[in-house]
Amino acid sequence: MANTKALKIGLLGGGQLARMLALEAHRLGVLPYVLSPHSTDPAAQATQFWIQGDPHNASDIKKFSEQVDVLTFESEFVNAELLGQLPVQLEVFPAPKLMALFQKRLSQKETLTLHQIPTAPFLEVKTAADLELAWKTLGPFVLKANFGGYDGNGTHYAHKKSDLAGLREKLRSGESFLAEKKIRFQKELALIFVRGKNGECFHLPLVETQQVNSRCDWVLGPVKNRHVTSFAKKFSLMLKKLNYVGVMGVELFLVDGKLLVNEIAPRVHNSGHFSQDAMTISQFALHLMAGLGHPLVPPELNAKNFVMTNLLGEEKKTFDLGQFSGAVHWYGKTEIRKGRKMGHVNYLGASSQALLKKSLSERKRSLR
Amino acid sequence: MANTKALKIGLLGGGQLARMLALEAHRLGVLPYVLSPHSTDPAAQATQFWIQGDPHNASDIKKFSEQVDVLTFESEFVNAELLGQLPVQLEVFPAPKLMALFQKRLSQKETLTLHQIPTAPFLEVKTAADLELAWKTLGPFVLKANFGGYDGNGTHYAHKKSDLAGLREKLRSGESFLAEKKIRFQKELALIFVRGKNGECFHLPLVETQQVNSRCDWVLGPVKNRHVTSFAKKFSLMLKKLNYVGVMGVELFLVDGKLLVNEIAPRVHNSGHFSQDAMTISQFALHLMAGLGHPLVPPELNAKNFVMTNLLGEEKKTFDLGQFSGAVHWYGKTEIRKGRKMGHVNYLGASSQALLKKSLSERKRSLR
Repeated sequence: MANTKALKIGLLGGGQLARMLALEAHRLGVLPYVLSPHSTDPAAQATQFWIQGDPHNASDIKKFSEQVDVLTFESEFVNAELLGQLPVQLEVFPAPKLMALFQKRLSQKETLTLHQIPTAPFLEVKTAADLELAWKTLGPFVLKANFGGYDGNGTHYAHKKSDLAGLREKLRSGESFLAEKKIRFQKELALIFVRGKNGECFHLPLVETQQVNSRCDWVLGPVKNRHVTSFAKKFSLMLKKLNYVGVMGVELFLVDGKLLVNEIAPRVHNSGHFSQDAMTISQFALHLMAGLGHPLVPPELNAKNFVMTNLLGEEKKTFDLGQFSGAVHWYGKTEIRKGRKMGHVNYLGASSQALLKKSLSERKRSLR
Repeated sequence: MANTKALKIGLLGGGQLARMLALEAHRLGVLPYVLSPHSTDPAAQATQFWIQGDPHNASDIKKFSEQVDVLTFESEFVNAELLGQLPVQLEVFPAPKLMALFQKRLSQKETLTLHQIPTAPFLEVKTAADLELAWKTLGPFVLKANFGGYDGNGTHYAHKKSDLAGLREKLRSGESFLAEKKIRFQKELALIFVRGKNGECFHLPLVETQQVNSRCDWVLGPVKNRHVTSFAKKFSLMLKKLNYVGVMGVELFLVDGKLLVNEIAPRVHNSGHFSQDAMTISQFALHLMAGLGHPLVPPELNAKNFVMTNLLGEEKKTFDLGQFSGAVHWYGKTEIRKGRKMGHVNYLGASSQALLKKSLSERKRSLR
């Protein structure tokens, strides 16, 4: 008789990404410890090892980190400085200094530029004069908070010069902003990269993503683009130079057939949820395996085409989850709010357009 | 804003089958409540809704049943009489009276025979005279406990007449036994059936199963057999007549190219674990969806061929889970014992023989 010594992996945060990481951790034989404020949080429900606490509170993080062997994140907005000071015997992935680099839009853009990865022209904006300069240099632009923006939160538009007045108001908060040239794109695309502790690096198939009110509505794929290989080569080289470990989500604009980075997220990403059913290994498993040092091989597609549709909350309505012919992934949130990500559904088949049509019709019918 | 009302599904027992049901329940948006004695039980780890108790104790079951909306099982050895007396507003699947029917080998065999499903000739054995009669009628036979046998436990052999003396000793326990004619089979096969609350009924691809010391060692598939269609027709008719709801595992002997039922289990089954990765819907999801009344469509294969290998415990050794190129499913048991099912690994590919070779070599290499 021998006792098994299961590794304990700490997940900072209790949202749907942590939940799906936790479910894969169980499968892989790693105990998922979740730090989150409420027992009703999506990830808190999916494990016995839930620790009540604030994933942004220094003392809670410290206590939590003492209970686990490895630590990872569901959100890039972590206290990277504090995480960098945790005892070295605790493995943290991606590295706190890389979380710091990518969580701020300015250093993210600078890093991409440094590694010759195409992205929209940008300027840092702190003052009203910076706004004027941005308009002069970039023309119509998007003003984004340097830190903490997601799903359109913290994003404002300067379509015409008179919009600058409104934007000046935003600057009063004292926050740092970034002005990014407004890109006329044909489509939005996305790529999931993963890099293992042992240096393996690859990406999942290119997908098209559809945003509604700055929130992901659906994803379909695989999408062909002749520039993917050269893009991936550059991107992998950056990940190697940085010694990045884990999954990274890359949002792209398709501009005249070419790939331009919109933004990147150093974590599992909504645009990669299709992998749970459409690929032989999900992005959640890949992220964990990357950090645990398991050998990584590129997963394969389980079907010719796939579609993922998000279940976004509607006012005073719920979803009848028995209405879907695709694979339902529900997040277990106790409150439905308009536009809130409540779950998603994955579809596999021979034609992504047919799948998309079916999925949108099933989603509509499921609302009660 | 609306509140979501998640259904609570009770799982009686905390082993690996309940664990894998719990993981799929989370995904499907159903809260998995687990009744088991220890917090370290495989299923207890994978949910916040673990209730400490004995799944065979009447008072524990009663209290547990009051907390859930639906109830199901990971083992056929339940107190069917008690379960049949639970309030009718609690949905229980499969129906307690069917659990009673299939958990006893004698009534299981009688039911199969009644529905013209081929199975080995058998006799009930209570006395020494019954043993003599069994030898005279059946020749070499297998003596199996009427209730409670699994993985070779409660199974004894009469290869030659002199073995009867030893078997007489077994009868002293007062238990009821069944003598089954020893079948000379070419292979062992298995089929997973599922029948939904709304009457949909189908089976997963036929597989070959390899037993070592009466325990499943590996499974491969899909296997072709020209009698599957007619067998499935009869079997589905039985399930329909009984109004069975849920997954049923069917162990088969291949005899001269034909299918003969060895035994059946009214639950998810080791021979169906391949479905977690090799099919678009797993047997665990199918079981839950069947009982929840979700529309059921036959899942599709994700690959041409598949292999599942069990990770059976070895004396004083552990498994290095980073050694597998297949998809690991670990059960989180805290103690490794010889022959104990600790986990399994699923492999997908073009040749099942090549996959089998690879999986067995990886399993060997992973033992530390």
